[in-house]
Amino acid sequence: MIKNDLFLRALQGETVERPPVWMMRQAGRYLPEFMALKEKYDFFTRCQTPELASEITVQPIRRYGMDAAILFSDILVIPQAMNIEVEMKAGVGPWLPDPIRTAADVEHRVIVPNIEETLGYVMDAIDMTKEKLNNQVPLIGFAGSPWTILCYCVQGQGSKNFDKAKAFCYTQPEAAHALLQKITDTTILYLKEKVKHGVNAVQVFDSWGGMLSPVDYQEFSWQYIQQIIDALKDEAPVIAFGKGCWFALDTMAKSGAAALGVDWTCSPEMARQLTGGNITLQGNFDPSRLLSPPATIKKMVKEMIDAFGKDKYIVNLGHGILPNIPIENAGAFIEAVKEYGS
Amino acid sequence: MIKNDLFLRALQGETVERPPVWMMRQAGRYLPEFMALKEKYDFFTRCQTPELASEITVQPIRRYGMDAAILFSDILVIPQAMNIEVEMKAGVGPWLPDPIRTAADVEHRVIVPNIEETLGYVMDAIDMTKEKLNNQVPLIGFAGSPWTILCYCVQGQGSKNFDKAKAFCYTQPEAAHALLQKITDTTILYLKEKVKHGVNAVQVFDSWGGMLSPVDYQEFSWQYIQQIIDALKDEAPVIAFGKGCWFALDTMAKSGAAALGVDWTCSPEMARQLTGGNITLQGNFDPSRLLSPPATIKKMVKEMIDAFGKDKYIVNLGHGILPNIPIENAGAFIEAVKEYGS
Repeated sequence: MIKNDLFLRALQGETVERPPVWMMRQAGRYLPEFMALKEKYDFFTRCQTPELASEITVQPIRRYGMDAAILFSDILVIPQAMNIEVEMKAGVGPWLPDPIRTAADVEHRVIVPNIEETLGYVMDAIDMTKEKLNNQVPLIGFAGSPWTILCYCVQGQGSKNFDKAKAFCYTQPEAAHALLQKITDTTILYLKEKVKHGVNAVQVFDSWGGMLSPVDYQEFSWQYIQQIIDALKDEAPVIAFGKGCWFALDTMAKSGAAALGVDWTCSPEMARQLTGGNITLQGNFDPSRLLSPPATIKKMVKEMIDAFGKDKYIVNLGHGILPNIPIENAGAFIEAVKEYGS
Repeated sequence: MIKNDLFLRALQGETVERPPVWMMRQAGRYLPEFMALKEKYDFFTRCQTPELASEITVQPIRRYGMDAAILFSDILVIPQAMNIEVEMKAGVGPWLPDPIRTAADVEHRVIVPNIEETLGYVMDAIDMTKEKLNNQVPLIGFAGSPWTILCYCVQGQGSKNFDKAKAFCYTQPEAAHALLQKITDTTILYLKEKVKHGVNAVQVFDSWGGMLSPVDYQEFSWQYIQQIIDALKDEAPVIAFGKGCWFALDTMAKSGAAALGVDWTCSPEMARQLTGGNITLQGNFDPSRLLSPPATIKKMVKEMIDAFGKDKYIVNLGHGILPNIPIENAGAFIEAVKEYGS
């Protein structure tokens, strides 16, 4: 049994003393203890070495005592396992030297892998993290949405508008759907294996869904996330987070997801309205607002909880924490939640 | 009198045979005739030389016969005129070697300029363009929103999240508001002068408004756009376009703007609902969707017009046209509108 089960109770919609809190990218570059490991080990070494990944996962819990841990990893371990080379280039970010551009690429180069063989290191990291957490707080596993993974596989790197990825979908829709289905199949196997190893919930990150029109979102992103939810929801609560996907919140609310992530451009009131008021929501503090003075942060967090309501709510940022956030500001964010109502 | 007044009639909410059409960045890099001038003259030379700016403005009208021209220029001529150095760096884009970072910078370095002295070349370009257009179609003048201009002035270049600009606002709000007010004052003088020289409508581009929460948007962006609308609306119709600003459409609809721009993440139905159904809307084709085959483009444009309704509507993209759009695809977009209903 997990000692602090606030997060799991919020996912089930139960009444709680205060809402739980965690932060997207809480195991990240704003932490000096993370930077110390980053200086010694490159990105994929940190992901692929269970001792390092588990240590990084528990760092923020030790410092701040969030109500949930999220396994340190990267959404791009999936294309790596699917036989697509992915590097992390200094100053560039993700870099795929040989992107997917044709139906033949999808058919011949991309595989649905054996998870144990290709991503066993993630499962080892989960095992080791569970030991370190010692049932203090739940552990979240995650994956990118198939659309977001496709964006990188086709574009070959980060982009302002992922024009090459969108062109691929709009000029070769059959190849795009074949790729999305392979990513979906792999993601389902991957998340199920994570649940077997003890993650208590899974989150699907659709970082680039908000670049699509509502119609294209249904076609190229949402239907695949729905497949993942259908396959996982009886095994673990699923959180669906689509950055900029306010326009799909009504559909998402009927999906069987346990909770929906919301970004800061959607007010708490509007988020409740668009989702029908009955599903647990997670979010939505503007990560840049953690640059405000700590007293302002605390005031804004309290207002945010008041606006969402303390139940069916998980306090979080609206996207990942930025590397330049002072550690005391991140602390003020967590403290404000713990002090809520007292 | 303007011969083709479809655009002006749509701005007034009149019943029209078919909606008017133009494209944001229609005078741009997808056009071979634009590229020919780009190879010979650098960016600010093209902006500052009335012969070139007017020629570039009419290029797309000659090729496609849109229902409105928009003066070729750049939103960053405003900070230039305000004594902030702006360069256009190859491969980087806008580059401000000495960004604004302190209250002292705002007070001592930033001026509200004499428009004729600093931006007379824009007025000359308008005069020359009006001659070339010979009253065939209306001419649109534009400016960036004060918030969007602040983003560049403080960040010093383009950015994924404009974290330095946001940090400036959140840690030094008084300095931010002083800067926003100076930009607003300059923009009002600038747009009024444009109207004097004969532009038939003005558009305010809030390209980065969608990075703010609804509350921060009101504080740091909208209140200044509202000042601009108040100052201009009796002299020319004002179009307000905030990329990603769906959450403010209800406020915008009550502002006195003649029309509101909408991006492609907001469905036509939702845009009509959020704005109350009574104001002219402009948009919202996904610029990447112009990568689709021409037949698909035509089908999608027809569906878009059906969804918005032909009245109180100006067909446009949801943001600027991309440089890699084939010219026949841009042509299909324009043709589909002209063929609508026939």
